[in-house]
Amino acid sequence: MNAIIASTSTIHGSGYLEYLKPVLKEHFKYAKSILFIPYARPSGLTHDEYTAKAKEGLSFLKAEVKGIHTFEDPMQAIKSAEAIFVGGGNTFLLVKTLHDLKLMQVLREVILKSTPYLGTSAGSNICGPNMQTTNDMPIVLPASFETLGVIPFNINAHYIEEDPNSRHKGESRRTRIKEFQNLNRINVLGLKEGSWLEARGDKITLKGDLDAVWFEPLENPKVLKPETILEC
Amino acid sequence: MNAIIASTSTIHGSGYLEYLKPVLKEHFKYAKSILFIPYARPSGLTHDEYTAKAKEGLSFLKAEVKGIHTFEDPMQAIKSAEAIFVGGGNTFLLVKTLHDLKLMQVLREVILKSTPYLGTSAGSNICGPNMQTTNDMPIVLPASFETLGVIPFNINAHYIEEDPNSRHKGESRRTRIKEFQNLNRINVLGLKEGSWLEARGDKITLKGDLDAVWFEPLENPKVLKPETILEC
Repeated sequence: MNAIIASTSTIHGSGYLEYLKPVLKEHFKYAKSILFIPYARPSGLTHDEYTAKAKEGLSFLKAEVKGIHTFEDPMQAIKSAEAIFVGGGNTFLLVKTLHDLKLMQVLREVILKSTPYLGTSAGSNICGPNMQTTNDMPIVLPASFETLGVIPFNINAHYIEEDPNSRHKGESRRTRIKEFQNLNRINVLGLKEGSWLEARGDKITLKGDLDAVWFEPLENPKVLKPETILEC
Repeated sequence: MNAIIASTSTIHGSGYLEYLKPVLKEHFKYAKSILFIPYARPSGLTHDEYTAKAKEGLSFLKAEVKGIHTFEDPMQAIKSAEAIFVGGGNTFLLVKTLHDLKLMQVLREVILKSTPYLGTSAGSNICGPNMQTTNDMPIVLPASFETLGVIPFNINAHYIEEDPNSRHKGESRRTRIKEFQNLNRINVLGLKEGSWLEARGDKITLKGDLDAVWFEPLENPKVLKPETILEC
């Protein structure tokens, strides 16, 4: 595997993908073209508009960025891609579209064959066994919640701790993840905005300057420091 | 219809159901027993434990509170209930269980026949046409996202405006609801903690001291004052 799995595309006070620039220069250095998958498209954007945004965000690279929606055969586009970027937005919409177009399996295969992959937010949520630790609203019903499973645990992107002064009674992120684990025996990584995973071969390393939070069923959550190796 | 549809069971600094006490005294005044539906059960609680909590929260009433899980035939329990309370927790879990046990239709029927109903949080989310504006995590996959449809719009419970000083890049509640409306032509009411709807006959009134936010597809959200009549 050769993947960058990022909590968010954008951190506060910085442009789209800007904080990842040095990482992506290295990650995509051999790619002449990058296949962009805009299916999670955020509010209001068309596939074209979202692809234009990705193009601009990656304009510091020499690679050409092409939207998968411009290919007649999206499955073939994935199979022959030199590199792949799955952008954020709504995870339900992304997963539904990948299942409807029968692309989940082929995407899994090329990632496991080490096609350089970048996922941000929803594009990172799909790397685990299922999408059931997303924060997104269920705006569509996917055929299945199963996702790529190229990493052996689920991601909770945009992870944030509850403000201890909050008067809000909605569940905290920790509570939600523990609820998930009452019913699913799957480990979960809470990945804060500004953190990413680097997956090279079988080694998955926590990157960025921030701690992450590791949840195992029936265990108390553990704080992980940057450079922690999650699988090897 | 004769329903109280509340954003939350509990407001900051107050006990379970406490802020609704005067409303519920009136609402349930003729009920000798109340059927409690604990299927959304929050983290860690058993159906028995959650029912005990509901019993305690409603102990100011004379009515006996019975959990639906203690009945051999839950469909019959709903049909013959004098009053019904569906508690909060996880909306996916609640909706999956109601569909799996084929209880959605019968619950709809008794509510439309004016059996006094109380919903809090997840128990309120299910009153609209579908559950797709829940904030909850998809910890299980329901057979369908369709819900009771006893009111003609969706609820977003625990509605909260984004902190304008937030540095977090996850979507705001407004953005999520507008994303839902890009794909679904359904109106949505953002109901803050401490607000509830009173549905009597065909009249639905916003109650409590707080504003609510009304979302129509393709329109800017509108702020609604307490005592606004939503349907008549």
